[in-house]
Amino acid sequence: MRATNLTLLTDLYELTMMQGYFKNPTNQTVIFDMFYRVNPCGGSFAITAGLEQMIEYIENLHFTDDDIEYLRSLHIFEDDFLEYLRSFKFTGDIYAIPEGTVVFPREPLVKVIAPIMEAQLVETAILNIINHQSLIATKAARVCYAARGDGIMEFGLRRAQGPDAGIYGARAAVIGGCAGTSNVLTGQMFNVPVLGTHAHSWIMSFPDEYTAFKTYAKMYPNSCTLLVDTYDVLKSGVPNAIRVFEEMREEGVKLTHYGIRIDSGDLAYLSKEAYKMLAAAGFDDATISASSDLDEYLIDSLKTQDAKINSWGVGTNLITSKDNPAFGGVYKLAAVKDADSTNFTPKIKLSENTEKVTNPGNKTVYRIYSKSTGKIKADLICLADEVFDPDETMIIFDPADTWKKTKVLGGTYELRELLVPVIREGKRVYTSPEVMDLREYCQKEQNTLWDESRRLVNPQKVYVDLSQKLYDLKKNLLEEMSEKALD
Amino acid sequence: MRATNLTLLTDLYELTMMQGYFKNPTNQTVIFDMFYRVNPCGGSFAITAGLEQMIEYIENLHFTDDDIEYLRSLHIFEDDFLEYLRSFKFTGDIYAIPEGTVVFPREPLVKVIAPIMEAQLVETAILNIINHQSLIATKAARVCYAARGDGIMEFGLRRAQGPDAGIYGARAAVIGGCAGTSNVLTGQMFNVPVLGTHAHSWIMSFPDEYTAFKTYAKMYPNSCTLLVDTYDVLKSGVPNAIRVFEEMREEGVKLTHYGIRIDSGDLAYLSKEAYKMLAAAGFDDATISASSDLDEYLIDSLKTQDAKINSWGVGTNLITSKDNPAFGGVYKLAAVKDADSTNFTPKIKLSENTEKVTNPGNKTVYRIYSKSTGKIKADLICLADEVFDPDETMIIFDPADTWKKTKVLGGTYELRELLVPVIREGKRVYTSPEVMDLREYCQKEQNTLWDESRRLVNPQKVYVDLSQKLYDLKKNLLEEMSEKALD
Repeated sequence: MRATNLTLLTDLYELTMMQGYFKNPTNQTVIFDMFYRVNPCGGSFAITAGLEQMIEYIENLHFTDDDIEYLRSLHIFEDDFLEYLRSFKFTGDIYAIPEGTVVFPREPLVKVIAPIMEAQLVETAILNIINHQSLIATKAARVCYAARGDGIMEFGLRRAQGPDAGIYGARAAVIGGCAGTSNVLTGQMFNVPVLGTHAHSWIMSFPDEYTAFKTYAKMYPNSCTLLVDTYDVLKSGVPNAIRVFEEMREEGVKLTHYGIRIDSGDLAYLSKEAYKMLAAAGFDDATISASSDLDEYLIDSLKTQDAKINSWGVGTNLITSKDNPAFGGVYKLAAVKDADSTNFTPKIKLSENTEKVTNPGNKTVYRIYSKSTGKIKADLICLADEVFDPDETMIIFDPADTWKKTKVLGGTYELRELLVPVIREGKRVYTSPEVMDLREYCQKEQNTLWDESRRLVNPQKVYVDLSQKLYDLKKNLLEEMSEKALD
Repeated sequence: MRATNLTLLTDLYELTMMQGYFKNPTNQTVIFDMFYRVNPCGGSFAITAGLEQMIEYIENLHFTDDDIEYLRSLHIFEDDFLEYLRSFKFTGDIYAIPEGTVVFPREPLVKVIAPIMEAQLVETAILNIINHQSLIATKAARVCYAARGDGIMEFGLRRAQGPDAGIYGARAAVIGGCAGTSNVLTGQMFNVPVLGTHAHSWIMSFPDEYTAFKTYAKMYPNSCTLLVDTYDVLKSGVPNAIRVFEEMREEGVKLTHYGIRIDSGDLAYLSKEAYKMLAAAGFDDATISASSDLDEYLIDSLKTQDAKINSWGVGTNLITSKDNPAFGGVYKLAAVKDADSTNFTPKIKLSENTEKVTNPGNKTVYRIYSKSTGKIKADLICLADEVFDPDETMIIFDPADTWKKTKVLGGTYELRELLVPVIREGKRVYTSPEVMDLREYCQKEQNTLWDESRRLVNPQKVYVDLSQKLYDLKKNLLEEMSEKALD
């Protein structure tokens, strides 16, 4: 039976660490950042998604009696800790970048400020939810970009990694730009368009293709896309479809949403030939939709070859993000405040790999837009209490190659803080927009990127810089730790 | 909020087709086969999984009032059809190959015999559930094979494609051979071992590494695996771990489950050096566990280099089956029986690609075992009513290259029918074993493969042949259809 309480959707070590903190109470409040390091699929950006499900998870956190008894049965948790869990609630604050936003590596997408036991427990589920949906939203944005304005339908439920991957994957795909999904449950849950006509089995269950088409057209005259590749696209499927369309026309049916779908064979050749046949019969406005192992690269290539396709059904490669099926989001400790202290002490995680060294402290992210173009100039990760005046000239620099400096003239830019409060003292303070509104917002977000950064292959990187104050803090901490190591 | 009723977890076209059959009643009973065409990850086999969740889905199928109202709101379904859905139940029969079984391409893993409307509706969810779990069980079998008997822990929840991918992915990973999972919810739901100790954040929240280790060891003396790579594995982590183990020994703690975990750096070098240091201090029985972007190929390579690792935590690459994140199961019409007929008419789906031509008719699968070795000689797909006598010599042949014939001498082989009834007239007639029993069964199943077929790279293919009767039926249907096409 499906689990409805996701409180135990966590790694065991979160609970063993929690008990550790419970038994050795420091009463620390901590800050964890969720961020990622590498853009999916070789792109220059990602799209955040999953925030609404993350908030629901936080709101619903509670250990049931069954959960407590299960944990007791593991013989690693003591009674006092299990009693504490019984009344456990999340009491901290969470900030996040809204869903559908274009984001870049190392920016905190989610910032959790909470007592250490609470902040630790929620790590795994936050990562699971945000990683998954951000992955699929990003992939969808790429696929839609390749289609140059044509509609993309999400068709992948049967190949998704379980029910949720289908349900929330389709949600994320629509946020990223898909026009709709074949997944009826996603349609119901999130009020997004559901699409689809018939399968090969429909055709095969009739004595012949014409009868199958005709029966379908009578039923659905206003949404009549006929699947033409069961027997032979050009010799059988398209001629039978044209025959049915002609009969509908003769019967006075106004053909509005009608056309064909091709699900196999060479889509460029078949679509061009099919278009000629349809146009010759006066059906040049028929939709020609295609599906069959599509991804952004194949769609781009078919568009370049002038395939006469204007609607695309994308399944496996989108719903699993097949060439890059994991979004590498991580959740790292950034600062600790002891019970008797009023200030957070920044924490840093070293790594042999410089790119993996974390950014310490209580941070936020500002986006710097060019006033004249509305495009993104750069993002700035800084400490949460820093204040910038857009009338003043700002010098930003690459945190790895610090000699790469850019001067942003006062008055030429606008600033927007990306992180917004979503949970305060354990309570939701954020209302998520409807999914179709997130989709519209996401379109606008993508338009703030230069086209050079949207290119599918080897795009121009978008700069994410550190403020001088954060850079100095990081440098000092690194030097302090490396000196300690020499002792 | 999480959906608990998965009835609408289907593609819209299943419902539009259903209405089509409802409005044009033929009262056909049909047979659909679920099968796959290509083994995941270049292997020679797959492991089936997900059957229990598929049965639960079938048992729970029903349209709620909300579902009906939602469908009505789409303005494509008529009142009589919506009324029919209100009392909809699955009334058909389903046969399936039990979970944990080694299977091969083109064998029906699931066979649905039902009125066409019912058989059509369930297509998408059956594929979703079986595709996902079979994928992860197969991947787990490969990873465990690479580890040559060492324990594999499933650690991937944070990178899984949503909650279900984590929950059921971990279930499938255990079926495929993992010793346990970090996912507590999977542990609770399926009574499988949960594993895990602490993260870098535990270490970082203490003033120093030694104090963090010591605190942990005091809490969990019986399960004390210390993460040694927060600062420096060999200079800091391992020496501090040894200091703690020595203190425990001095205090008279019997060290049973204890050791270190390395999560970064070169695992071969670090594990060998760490082993030397541990052994020199008298801790040569400490577990050395490793995690960090592991998959079957890296584990195999580390084993070949004699890395001193005896426990492995595998995350992203297992839970997403990263190099092959979709199991290409399909669901194809195999036969149709009209209401006024007693016999099924076999159906075949043509394709330009010969491999994609389906096998027609009401079929089953027999496994042929060598009596002397217990290993699989071949599988035989045949018509459901065929009977074979293992005392008689059997000649089997490759369905593509029919001149490749093998004589199996009477008395030297045993037969086992793989498909078993799981649903009869809509009711469950099958009780799934516990997951840990499925794991044990799956180990035995893998031992029926020759080692040559378990090799990770370019393994020997296992033969799946067609019976003479099925072969003739398929050939005749193909010729009939191609002659029709010439007309």
